[in-house]
Amino acid sequence: MSSIWGKNVKISIFGESHGKAIGVVIDGLPPGIELNLEDISREMQRRMPGRSKISTPRKEGDKTEILSGFFNGKTTGTPLSSIIFNTDQRSRDYKSTKSIPRPGHADYTGHIRYSGFNDYRGGGHFSGRLTAPLVFAGAIAKQILSKNNIQVGSHIKKIGSIEDVPFNPVNIEPSLLKELKDKDFCVIDDVIGEKMKEHILGIKEERDSVGGVIEGAVINLPEGIGSPFFNSAESKLSQILFSIPGIKGVEFGAGFDITEMKGSEANDELYIEGYKIRSYSNNNGGILGGITNGMPIIFRVAIKPTPSIGKSQRTVDISKDINTRIETEGRHDPCIVPRAIPVIEAACAIALLDLIMEKDGLL
Amino acid sequence: MSSIWGKNVKISIFGESHGKAIGVVIDGLPPGIELNLEDISREMQRRMPGRSKISTPRKEGDKTEILSGFFNGKTTGTPLSSIIFNTDQRSRDYKSTKSIPRPGHADYTGHIRYSGFNDYRGGGHFSGRLTAPLVFAGAIAKQILSKNNIQVGSHIKKIGSIEDVPFNPVNIEPSLLKELKDKDFCVIDDVIGEKMKEHILGIKEERDSVGGVIEGAVINLPEGIGSPFFNSAESKLSQILFSIPGIKGVEFGAGFDITEMKGSEANDELYIEGYKIRSYSNNNGGILGGITNGMPIIFRVAIKPTPSIGKSQRTVDISKDINTRIETEGRHDPCIVPRAIPVIEAACAIALLDLIMEKDGLL
Amino acid sequence: MSSIWGKNVKISIFGESHGKAIGVVIDGLPPGIELNLEDISREMQRRMPGRSKISTPRKEGDKTEILSGFFNGKTTGTPLSSIIFNTDQRSRDYKSTKSIPRPGHADYTGHIRYSGFNDYRGGGHFSGRLTAPLVFAGAIAKQILSKNNIQVGSHIKKIGSIEDVPFNPVNIEPSLLKELKDKDFCVIDDVIGEKMKEHILGIKEERDSVGGVIEGAVINLPEGIGSPFFNSAESKLSQILFSIPGIKGVEFGAGFDITEMKGSEANDELYIEGYKIRSYSNNNGGILGGITNGMPIIFRVAIKPTPSIGKSQRTVDISKDINTRIETEGRHDPCIVPRAIPVIEAACAIALLDLIMEKDGLL
Amino acid sequence: MSSIWGKNVKISIFGESHGKAIGVVIDGLPPGIELNLEDISREMQRRMPGRSKISTPRKEGDKTEILSGFFNGKTTGTPLSSIIFNTDQRSRDYKSTKSIPRPGHADYTGHIRYSGFNDYRGGGHFSGRLTAPLVFAGAIAKQILSKNNIQVGSHIKKIGSIEDVPFNPVNIEPSLLKELKDKDFCVIDDVIGEKMKEHILGIKEERDSVGGVIEGAVINLPEGIGSPFFNSAESKLSQILFSIPGIKGVEFGAGFDITEMKGSEANDELYIEGYKIRSYSNNNGGILGGITNGMPIIFRVAIKPTPSIGKSQRTVDISKDINTRIETEGRHDPCIVPRAIPVIEAACAIALLDLIMEKDGLL
Repeated sequence: MSSIWGKNVKISIFGESHGKAIGVVIDGLPPGIELNLEDISREMQRRMPGRSKISTPRKEGDKTEILSGFFNGKTTGTPLSSIIFNTDQRSRDYKSTKSIPRPGHADYTGHIRYSGFNDYRGGGHFSGRLTAPLVFAGAIAKQILSKNNIQVGSHIKKIGSIEDVPFNPVNIEPSLLKELKDKDFCVIDDVIGEKMKEHILGIKEERDSVGGVIEGAVINLPEGIGSPFFNSAESKLSQILFSIPGIKGVEFGAGFDITEMKGSEANDELYIEGYKIRSYSNNNGGILGGITNGMPIIFRVAIKPTPSIGKSQRTVDISKDINTRIETEGRHDPCIVPRAIPVIEAACAIALLDLIMEKDGLL
Repeated sequence: MSSIWGKNVKISIFGESHGKAIGVVIDGLPPGIELNLEDISREMQRRMPGRSKISTPRKEGDKTEILSGFFNGKTTGTPLSSIIFNTDQRSRDYKSTKSIPRPGHADYTGHIRYSGFNDYRGGGHFSGRLTAPLVFAGAIAKQILSKNNIQVGSHIKKIGSIEDVPFNPVNIEPSLLKELKDKDFCVIDDVIGEKMKEHILGIKEERDSVGGVIEGAVINLPEGIGSPFFNSAESKLSQILFSIPGIKGVEFGAGFDITEMKGSEANDELYIEGYKIRSYSNNNGGILGGITNGMPIIFRVAIKPTPSIGKSQRTVDISKDINTRIETEGRHDPCIVPRAIPVIEAACAIALLDLIMEKDGLL
Repeated sequence: MSSIWGKNVKISIFGESHGKAIGVVIDGLPPGIELNLEDISREMQRRMPGRSKISTPRKEGDKTEILSGFFNGKTTGTPLSSIIFNTDQRSRDYKSTKSIPRPGHADYTGHIRYSGFNDYRGGGHFSGRLTAPLVFAGAIAKQILSKNNIQVGSHIKKIGSIEDVPFNPVNIEPSLLKELKDKDFCVIDDVIGEKMKEHILGIKEERDSVGGVIEGAVINLPEGIGSPFFNSAESKLSQILFSIPGIKGVEFGAGFDITEMKGSEANDELYIEGYKIRSYSNNNGGILGGITNGMPIIFRVAIKPTPSIGKSQRTVDISKDINTRIETEGRHDPCIVPRAIPVIEAACAIALLDLIMEKDGLL
Repeated sequence: MSSIWGKNVKISIFGESHGKAIGVVIDGLPPGIELNLEDISREMQRRMPGRSKISTPRKEGDKTEILSGFFNGKTTGTPLSSIIFNTDQRSRDYKSTKSIPRPGHADYTGHIRYSGFNDYRGGGHFSGRLTAPLVFAGAIAKQILSKNNIQVGSHIKKIGSIEDVPFNPVNIEPSLLKELKDKDFCVIDDVIGEKMKEHILGIKEERDSVGGVIEGAVINLPEGIGSPFFNSAESKLSQILFSIPGIKGVEFGAGFDITEMKGSEANDELYIEGYKIRSYSNNNGGILGGITNGMPIIFRVAIKPTPSIGKSQRTVDISKDINTRIETEGRHDPCIVPRAIPVIEAACAIALLDLIMEKDGLL
């Protein structure tokens, strides 16, 4: 049971990289929500490959078709589904995947998991392409959050070891998040961004790839969202974030750095401003005991280098039980991080929408 | 909906720090599993406070009583439940918590979340004490895994900035995990362990606290466990790990460090040994595409410093809408990391048992 | 995975007839609900055996102890758990159950399902005794519904072939439901009730048993509760009703009789009264398209005769693979229907509370 | 949250009667299952309208397109999705539905539930048309069951008051189920079938409609499937059966008739035949304690008369708050029962597949 998520808003994604279509069913959306389709399309564009030199030239016709749940420009409250037909597939690129697993990919584990029956072409259901329906669902979630004044945003915090300036954890302006959304390359400091791009191009030359860190933020989220233990805000967010292919780490607030602080440094001391309770610092990333405290939610995800590289690598041929080598030809991103931005935001928005709709405290 | 977790094996924890009892219901255990109660009791002991100078002198009579689901020394297959009656509570220590939230604690968020009706004494349902039933459930999960030759273990990777030697990601001996389990202070290098303990005692003198990192490992796990996307091994593990109070980061394999590697370094190249496919490195921590690949599972969790400290801190009085200060008196751990070891292992074992029982591929 | 139910309010029941204790965890209750413990105790009494000649003389000390989730007389919003210690067990009565399954009981199916490891004494986890925690949870659900003016009630519609007058499907007074609740033997027409009791006593003399039908009703439920398809009000109610041991049929509104009507008779025609839309008839039992329409919910459940009878019956000895006979000695109800009344109401109240808390239409 | 069902195999249905497409995602199918597409198509045909005089002349181009999860003729184990594009819609037929709810339909409850934003055309998501994807999913479930020798079948037990001969509850031949599947009008006794058809045509003449009862059976199901309480076989089956529009009653085995039996008549006495334990009677419909006992599963569902009738009926105009009348024009089935046969079987097969895949007893 892999591809359904959520409690109050459930998403069910389906499809394979080289199958007929991919898509998503979103069950449990509130009715009567006006959707801005252009904005959704813009989010899809942010994820789309083929838009620059640092991205794969592969074209994915991410033309989304809404099939249900949307009527007279508004959500109906019944399942909203959409599909994207696959078009620019070149299956010949991927033939060998079946018996010669690419290192760093799910070829081998998928083969074992599905007893060899999974669609191996282009990664099949494991493909990063499956994040397109996630972005679609996330774009809707974002719009609903936004109507409640909640903003989700993110930036490329790191490419290799080049670091952007971090979010100010106690004060993130909506205008900054908007600015980031409109950028082609989402960094706070564009000079650093240029260095990152150069670095990516250099790595591309080497037929290699590079990873990075994305820092996400959510502002204006009300206090009291989430629960202790298994449905803590961190639990829900991390579950969906780790669903995204290539994510190997998730941290909130000061994250792993908090372990080097003393309690007196780590604890976020409180004060009253007007009638609002705020904290001087935000090492807990806006979440205490699994519940939001009204400060910005801050999190970071570690994204591994694209496993598809042109360099020769050692692998095995599972049909012949021998060691062999592989060079992954094809059109690949030297760095997936820039295109992962809208995916991370989408996952975050979906998780938050689900959490906000948890109204067990109110009849 | 906070305190139920799992799909194939569900656990439902309940209780408050200063209520009548805490406990857990475990639903979906296979029948006929012989349980070693002494071993369960030993796991509970590992979590228990009051055992050394670096721990709180508070005594928690973690005497577990099994109420159901256990018959003639074996699991019945019907819900196994157990409770621990609360005994050594000193409610007077915690009175002020109601209106003066302790920084770093869930006092304020819990108050908002439950509209002021939650049991605030000693953290109530948010208390670290609730990890006792988790350890109980985890001890059972570990025994079932162990009967299938799967071992779960962990060590204190870091206290403040003092680091233990890491696990060898491609080869972890069962004997090492056993050794760690038997140690009072779970480090691989005992000399480093002594430095850590000294550091903790120094921090205790300062009426302050310190955090750390726990590194966990699972060996002999079969390949093919987990699923792409929302039920990926990382998603399931992180969801339950982030449920544990005080966890602010989770990473797998090389984790955040993988972001500074090139693809050619990060990809775990494969080879055949006998009929077994293994990888030279294990930067992916034994999981690819959300599915285990037969290499050890390696993960790390960031644990924040105990928020309860004797030092004076700024906070608010929500009943009076004013700023104030607080010094958290009472008997607290200067560092929760050593006692978190069995909790982390328990959470990990529960998640893996649930994943292993996912047999959607087989009728 | 057997004994957890619900989405917004989850209940997890545990225990065996002759184990140490039985109980329930209720997760997701709204915080701040004042509970009337006397009323809960009264509901438990309604289910309790040993209160009259038509019931088993067996005493079940259904003394409920609340362990968590209840503070200062109100729900906390965190899991509310309660247990009942088992006291008046006579395990010797049930010894043979292990190898000689009683016809009509779950002895054989339980043995197969749990590979012989289930606690067979007194039916173990299959015992009707497990309905006590259900009644406890239901009593709380009823109180919450009642604070919202929603009343749940029921009466014995049939014992064998003796029939009580039915509810008036378009108009059920709260006073009638209250009256029924206060009766020892819940029938609308007490003269018919006397005949039923006589019939039961006659059957008891024969060392046999008899079944019946309970008709349930819910009034003042708002319109718009439930969903099309899998979470239809009928789906949710039937799922939990069929969980109760001995239920073999569930119908709503005119139920099976609707199949003999024409559409022009079956359709509930509408009219406006003030600003309220009502229907002239209520053949759909207050539910259309899975959603409540504001008319009373009406349902009926078929309860089979108590399978435990003194008469000699043919069965098998599974340890010897031979045919044999059995006479079920022990203290049994000749008719379970009267004691099932609070159980049916509890199940109904729990299902409705869960449905009402489904607020996917509102942020 | 309406339209997702299941635990081990999840189905998510979507679409509206007059939207772009309807469809289903099936998550959790075992990989490597060869599917007979012709057979699936035949099942879809059985549900399709427009095939005879007793059915609506409306054509539904139920051409199913598989989008994912199916590769080289076999299931992949990843989500299998399919859609049916809507073609023969005549939206003008349904315009008035928005403000003048049709008695017996979900027009009014859907309007309330979704605050007036649901797609009202042709019933929208409430339409019986949504049972087409259910039949698709069920056809796959049936094939998987059939590969394990388990057969699902059904017949029209009653139209109005005309009754077919019942299944023999202790012995149903696979050949009988096959025969029924191949019939245009699924009755055991074709002479009675002719009378039923005549009756339906007579009712059609009157511009009225009629309901009926379908009796379903499952044979060769292994013992030990299902669980006590909330996931009892009856609970799971009834939940999905009551999801089907128009179902007002579900009973198992002797069902409501069991309430008029004595225990000594109702209990199914046991005997050994070879090494197999069977029962002389089957009043419990193959299920005891929520678990299958190896006897045929027998159940019956009550289907109400098609609410769409040409006769004039009283209703309200909710936009004007006045009473009014309606005559439902359009192309409707005078009796939905014959076309419901494959839907009932589909729901049953899906529930059983989910139950069978529950392997909590085995690692």
